[in-house]
Amino acid sequence: MFAGKGKTMNKPLQDVVVLDLSRVLAGPFCTMILSDLGAEIIKVEHPEKGDDSRAYGPFLHNRSLYFLSINHGKKSISLNLKKPQGRELFLKLIEHCDVLVENFRPGTMEKFNLGYELLKEKYPQLIYAAVSGFGHSGPDSQKPAYDILVQARGGIMSITGWQNMAPTRVGMSLGDITASLFTAIGINSALYQRTKTGLGQKIDVAMLDGQIAILENALVRYQAEGISPKPLGNRHPTISPFQAYKARDNYFVIAVGNDNLWDTFCKALEIPELISDKRFCNNRLRTENIDALNAILEPIFTAKPASWWLEIMEKSGIPCSSINNIESVMQDPQLLARNMFVEVNDPIAGTVKIAGNPIKMSSFPDSAVHEPAPEIGAHNKEIYCERLGLSEEDLAELQKAGVI
Amino acid sequence: MFAGKGKTMNKPLQDVVVLDLSRVLAGPFCTMILSDLGAEIIKVEHPEKGDDSRAYGPFLHNRSLYFLSINHGKKSISLNLKKPQGRELFLKLIEHCDVLVENFRPGTMEKFNLGYELLKEKYPQLIYAAVSGFGHSGPDSQKPAYDILVQARGGIMSITGWQNMAPTRVGMSLGDITASLFTAIGINSALYQRTKTGLGQKIDVAMLDGQIAILENALVRYQAEGISPKPLGNRHPTISPFQAYKARDNYFVIAVGNDNLWDTFCKALEIPELISDKRFCNNRLRTENIDALNAILEPIFTAKPASWWLEIMEKSGIPCSSINNIESVMQDPQLLARNMFVEVNDPIAGTVKIAGNPIKMSSFPDSAVHEPAPEIGAHNKEIYCERLGLSEEDLAELQKAGVI
Repeated sequence: MFAGKGKTMNKPLQDVVVLDLSRVLAGPFCTMILSDLGAEIIKVEHPEKGDDSRAYGPFLHNRSLYFLSINHGKKSISLNLKKPQGRELFLKLIEHCDVLVENFRPGTMEKFNLGYELLKEKYPQLIYAAVSGFGHSGPDSQKPAYDILVQARGGIMSITGWQNMAPTRVGMSLGDITASLFTAIGINSALYQRTKTGLGQKIDVAMLDGQIAILENALVRYQAEGISPKPLGNRHPTISPFQAYKARDNYFVIAVGNDNLWDTFCKALEIPELISDKRFCNNRLRTENIDALNAILEPIFTAKPASWWLEIMEKSGIPCSSINNIESVMQDPQLLARNMFVEVNDPIAGTVKIAGNPIKMSSFPDSAVHEPAPEIGAHNKEIYCERLGLSEEDLAELQKAGVI
Repeated sequence: MFAGKGKTMNKPLQDVVVLDLSRVLAGPFCTMILSDLGAEIIKVEHPEKGDDSRAYGPFLHNRSLYFLSINHGKKSISLNLKKPQGRELFLKLIEHCDVLVENFRPGTMEKFNLGYELLKEKYPQLIYAAVSGFGHSGPDSQKPAYDILVQARGGIMSITGWQNMAPTRVGMSLGDITASLFTAIGINSALYQRTKTGLGQKIDVAMLDGQIAILENALVRYQAEGISPKPLGNRHPTISPFQAYKARDNYFVIAVGNDNLWDTFCKALEIPELISDKRFCNNRLRTENIDALNAILEPIFTAKPASWWLEIMEKSGIPCSSINNIESVMQDPQLLARNMFVEVNDPIAGTVKIAGNPIKMSSFPDSAVHEPAPEIGAHNKEIYCERLGLSEEDLAELQKAGVI
């Protein structure tokens, strides 16, 4: 709203102002996406402590790269919502904002006397997005949530990893990130709806719900087979061979996604007799007889290095890939060409590369550089004085009183 | 556009019509989300073969539950884009649509002479969303992609699983699903932007790019530490203890997310001496000394069943959870209360439960039942005759000619 006046529309959310009360990951990752799409993010932080994740590693020159990597380009204001004057300031601010994002435990905004029911009376156009562990309804709504809890409870740990071993966590915070993405979809669709109705609404996304939404065919596999799917290591549940194999040196992956590719694959490996082998002649049978198939394939693959096999597969058009670690992923030519590692020039940490925006849109050019993440309250003057009309004396007093 | 006229706005995308050329997973999962938000999805399928995933397991009464679970509530028309008459029909259809979604290999639409550059001349308001393996630019743009390839190449397999073991795949198609979610965000933001500018645009999302965008702090961990992060089993890289432990019977998870919780945790376990133990007195040290810490904790936990520990943790307010398999996840009271398992009444497969919509929005009630997935061409008459004005004779002829 602030930014929209008289500006050329380049990015889709160029005229959208987001008041961001969220901390750590699920909320900030969502507002980072909105920021990449052009929204102005006003991040509200506790005057002393700021966002908890400012204290999370990894650190460079004592700067949290965790915080930096998901808060670049945002504005920060300090505000203590527990103080009556803080609440007043919040109500002045929200008047100028399109979207509010919070990831408190459900009920917290009501404790501040700033719940959605109250806000919508005065600001019916407000889009209020809440990301929480278990959602704003249901018996466990109030329970504390962390990523590992929803990965465990949501079923993904039961189908990731290896049989007869300890359960395996997906190596990033899938619980948080998935909820962020669904929340960003909800906010964008609510912005669109508001252009028709003039009305905002409440969006309630639970990390646990998000885990169910991405279980893909595991739910129906259970219903078709009557037993819970098991973890399959690096295999696909219903396509074969579609997994990692060990070559003489390293692992690599192949995806023989259909029966035509199977023919090509057998010829490329010089095992044409398998094409007519009744155990393997269609995908369903190859999946049922995967142990027998792998007993044939594994010794073939371990005889030569991965580069040898990748070259043969590439030549025959069999989908294949080496397995990148983080070092090699950051040098991948395709990802460099797609601008997926963007520099942030932080005044303390120096130049750091973080992930680029994966949503390439023709209405605006991809950023080659991101703005750094803000210090706590770095934009107090801009927001409180220039926008809300407070004087510098007001600011000094509010600061002294611990309100900002 | 078709549906918008004179209708009450309930769902955010109620007036949006999507022409969906996509097959298998990344595209159809995206249009499923748009459908849940109210958009009308016109799924275009090859007259004979239909969507490839109609042949993917799991099956129930020979019905693909894979297909059913991501195509519920869509309309299907048959159309062969390779035939000149098919192309003509497509151009008539697209005139009435807001969004086009395709997940062909880059260049395919150009081969049909239906590339974005051509379409936008005549339909500048069209939002054209392409989901592909590696994106519409870069040296590997044309390569075939499957989920396992982007999980391998995108780095997630290098940080999931266990050290000194084979690489581990995330147990669902994270490559496809992530790209779906980013595409859905892009489409919604483009719809919003179009209300301001009247213009559509092209959205280009690559599965591989999406994997980078969700690597979270792994990229900065590599830059801070100078070595590629390793897989950590079920541990968190920077918070401890935050993992699965084995009780006498089963595994369970705990998340000691801050130092206050650590105090509470030590008291609850009756090991208060650890609070002042210098190896463990803050999160950073607990992470550095996790092996020493686990050597103390593991024998404690294996002495009693998981239910015992979960009760103690719950009482003390330590975030914890049992680990659900798919059977138990489908009976979870919180998820049932959140309507996360929705029935589809399929005429052949019967009643099947699939994931509900995780974006709970106050502008419309959550669906308790989803419409079934369509047969190939089930909506030919509705779309071709009622909307485009073709006669039933026209339809019969087009069918005979293999166009629809």
